[in-house]
Amino acid sequence: MVDAIVLEDALKVVRLFLEQEQIEEAVDYIRGLHPSDAAEVLARLEPEERLPIIRRLSSEELADIVERMDEDDMAAIARQMQHERLVHVLERMEPDAAADLLGEMPDVEKATLLAEMADAGEVAPLLEYPPDTAGGIMNRVGPMLRRHMTVAEALEFLRRHYKDERELYYLYVLDRHGRLVGVVSLRSLILADPHQKIEEIMNPEVITVPADMDQEEVARLLARYDFLALPVVDEENHLLGIVTVDDVIDVLEEEATEDIYRLAQMSEHSEIFSPIRQALANRLPWLVVNLFTAFLASAVVSLFESTIARAAVLATFMPIVAGQGGNAGTQTMTIMVRSLALGELDVQDMWRALRYEVLVGLLNGLAIGLLVGLVAWVWKANPMLGVVIALAMIGNMLAAAVAGVVVPLVLKMVRVDPALASSIFVTTVTDVCGFFFFLSLGSWLLL
Amino acid sequence: MVDAIVLEDALKVVRLFLEQEQIEEAVDYIRGLHPSDAAEVLARLEPEERLPIIRRLSSEELADIVERMDEDDMAAIARQMQHERLVHVLERMEPDAAADLLGEMPDVEKATLLAEMADAGEVAPLLEYPPDTAGGIMNRVGPMLRRHMTVAEALEFLRRHYKDERELYYLYVLDRHGRLVGVVSLRSLILADPHQKIEEIMNPEVITVPADMDQEEVARLLARYDFLALPVVDEENHLLGIVTVDDVIDVLEEEATEDIYRLAQMSEHSEIFSPIRQALANRLPWLVVNLFTAFLASAVVSLFESTIARAAVLATFMPIVAGQGGNAGTQTMTIMVRSLALGELDVQDMWRALRYEVLVGLLNGLAIGLLVGLVAWVWKANPMLGVVIALAMIGNMLAAAVAGVVVPLVLKMVRVDPALASSIFVTTVTDVCGFFFFLSLGSWLLL
Repeated sequence: MVDAIVLEDALKVVRLFLEQEQIEEAVDYIRGLHPSDAAEVLARLEPEERLPIIRRLSSEELADIVERMDEDDMAAIARQMQHERLVHVLERMEPDAAADLLGEMPDVEKATLLAEMADAGEVAPLLEYPPDTAGGIMNRVGPMLRRHMTVAEALEFLRRHYKDERELYYLYVLDRHGRLVGVVSLRSLILADPHQKIEEIMNPEVITVPADMDQEEVARLLARYDFLALPVVDEENHLLGIVTVDDVIDVLEEEATEDIYRLAQMSEHSEIFSPIRQALANRLPWLVVNLFTAFLASAVVSLFESTIARAAVLATFMPIVAGQGGNAGTQTMTIMVRSLALGELDVQDMWRALRYEVLVGLLNGLAIGLLVGLVAWVWKANPMLGVVIALAMIGNMLAAAVAGVVVPLVLKMVRVDPALASSIFVTTVTDVCGFFFFLSLGSWLLL
Repeated sequence: MVDAIVLEDALKVVRLFLEQEQIEEAVDYIRGLHPSDAAEVLARLEPEERLPIIRRLSSEELADIVERMDEDDMAAIARQMQHERLVHVLERMEPDAAADLLGEMPDVEKATLLAEMADAGEVAPLLEYPPDTAGGIMNRVGPMLRRHMTVAEALEFLRRHYKDERELYYLYVLDRHGRLVGVVSLRSLILADPHQKIEEIMNPEVITVPADMDQEEVARLLARYDFLALPVVDEENHLLGIVTVDDVIDVLEEEATEDIYRLAQMSEHSEIFSPIRQALANRLPWLVVNLFTAFLASAVVSLFESTIARAAVLATFMPIVAGQGGNAGTQTMTIMVRSLALGELDVQDMWRALRYEVLVGLLNGLAIGLLVGLVAWVWKANPMLGVVIALAMIGNMLAAAVAGVVVPLVLKMVRVDPALASSIFVTTVTDVCGFFFFLSLGSWLLL
């Protein structure tokens, strides 16, 4: 029995060997790791640290490691290999991983590599589909059965022809025209009476997906039914490939990360310790867009400069009205965005969501407004200031509720990812409304 | 072949039947759905809508549906069943799902139900572990093999004794003391020569997890190695249960949702259309905590009221300095929180992260500061105002970078979920620093 290794420890061991110039020992240590761990360690080493290791690993070993990396890391390693070596490694990788790596390459290089690969026929079809669709993430299909085989014949067939099959999730049953007619789980193949026919144990109601289905939709479907794989078919129901549960886990993680980064207003490609130039490209444009909307809020405040000059205490409470509205709007927006992503909410629920969130906003506004109003009254010994801030708070909480519901749902309607742009619109609304409510009430009631 | 149904459509069909009081038709329609879909539909119906349906489904049918729901939905349905009926349904559910449902019950009711259940012996041990650990999410183990069996014997043994086994991922091999010594995949059992011994085809290096390992750590481990299940063992390596890939997907989704909601400063239990009282409990306390930190920012502004009274233009630019700092701090903090969650970052990387983010912050600050300074100069025809705002912006971007790195990593060190409390500390720092830098520079250079 073994415990999973701690990656940080493995990384330290490798670096220790490298520092003492014991390259062979480092390579042997990496050979001894599970390929998934070796992939993580290689990906985390600096390019110049891993170069001597890459050079010493065989093409088989490298293929086994590289196919477990994500696309960015694959591409980084590929850039460190000579052209001929890369062809050898690609030939030894699982076709879907090879396709992922080739997808990261410039078109010319991709074409050259494909032309030189011995088994390009398995990889090329996978490159036809956009990377974030069922076709883009599917793997090649393994062995297929016929409905009139017996279980014993099927087992014999598999043992004879697919001895070295590395990945096996379900067995698909085809008719004579190569169309999918059923699916058999490994479990039912093992547990069935050897004399039974495949058609007796197969499930004829196979849930399939088209090649152009969005990868997130495929992932949610597989998760909903607790499947280990989903078959991808064309319009005539020919089996094109399968999407497997391990790829689905990667998709769900990737989509969650994408939403988290987009909600925080940065590129979904953000990554810790990426080159500085990349980090700026991932963040600065979002800050600039935010800046323009912040100027809208400033413009509102600017209208009231003469009011503020006469009652500077208003400036003191400006951050509170806008800040609380922004927080409440973010809460509403986030629950909308996540529920849309998880398929728990649909655009047709807009009115129900609006009624619900406006009620929550009103109650939050009454509670927070009362509290802030009292504090303001006591702190500045000014009851009317308390009234102004309380009313402004209630108004802004209602604006926050409306914006928090409407913005994500409208973005969804016009097919923009709600996670992408909701934050910016919602906080713009709460800033502009917050300052306007507060300062106009202030200039009316306090001067 | 079938396409996956659209849940909204299924829900409409059921509601149409119910409105026309065709209860039997509604029940038959639900019986015809995949149990995962039936679970979704039942969960989305209002309690009074689903009551007649629950009454008409058999205990077997209900068990098959309820075990595919999440805990909250399970508990809601269970509350609509009479005690004896609930016992029958629990007896027919998979033990791990029954344990999840019992875990939602008050202690007294849980004990009564367990006492009345016929197969409590399978369920009770699963209730011993906290719900968010490996023990809490594990399933019971299926058939187990011995190392000296041949493949043919193993297949015969499985067919004879485990014909109706519903879930089978791997076969575990035990020694005579019941300790785990190896694992055989269904694939290798199918593809092996029938005369081979199990010990020849088993993998003796089984990666195991302890029952008290956090569920998120278990999930990441399974995902890292692309396993379909992970065995949970005690200290003597006795097999206690298995965590399966479908549960891991649920855990990863749940943890992502938790992080998204916590980053948006609301309870991780937030759910769309939960009862209003619940929604307020999930959101209002966070708004109140935020309010107290917002008063810190107000207090800073308050110090400068006399400055603002003489140069009210400062109030106009207050939202920009604080807002941009808040956005930049949120970007840094979010990348830290997500990288910590995905295991790509560790607390020992603090210095490297700090150097990196301070550099990004400085460059962002220079770019944004220059831009805002120019706009302020032109808009208000006041070059010194431009200088003040540019300097304040650079200072606040640096504060944002430091807070964005230090806050999540320190929370992680003291074992608080960084997603839980980072937002509030980071925006407090950027508000307080932003206002202080801007207003103190303003009172020095503009008056």
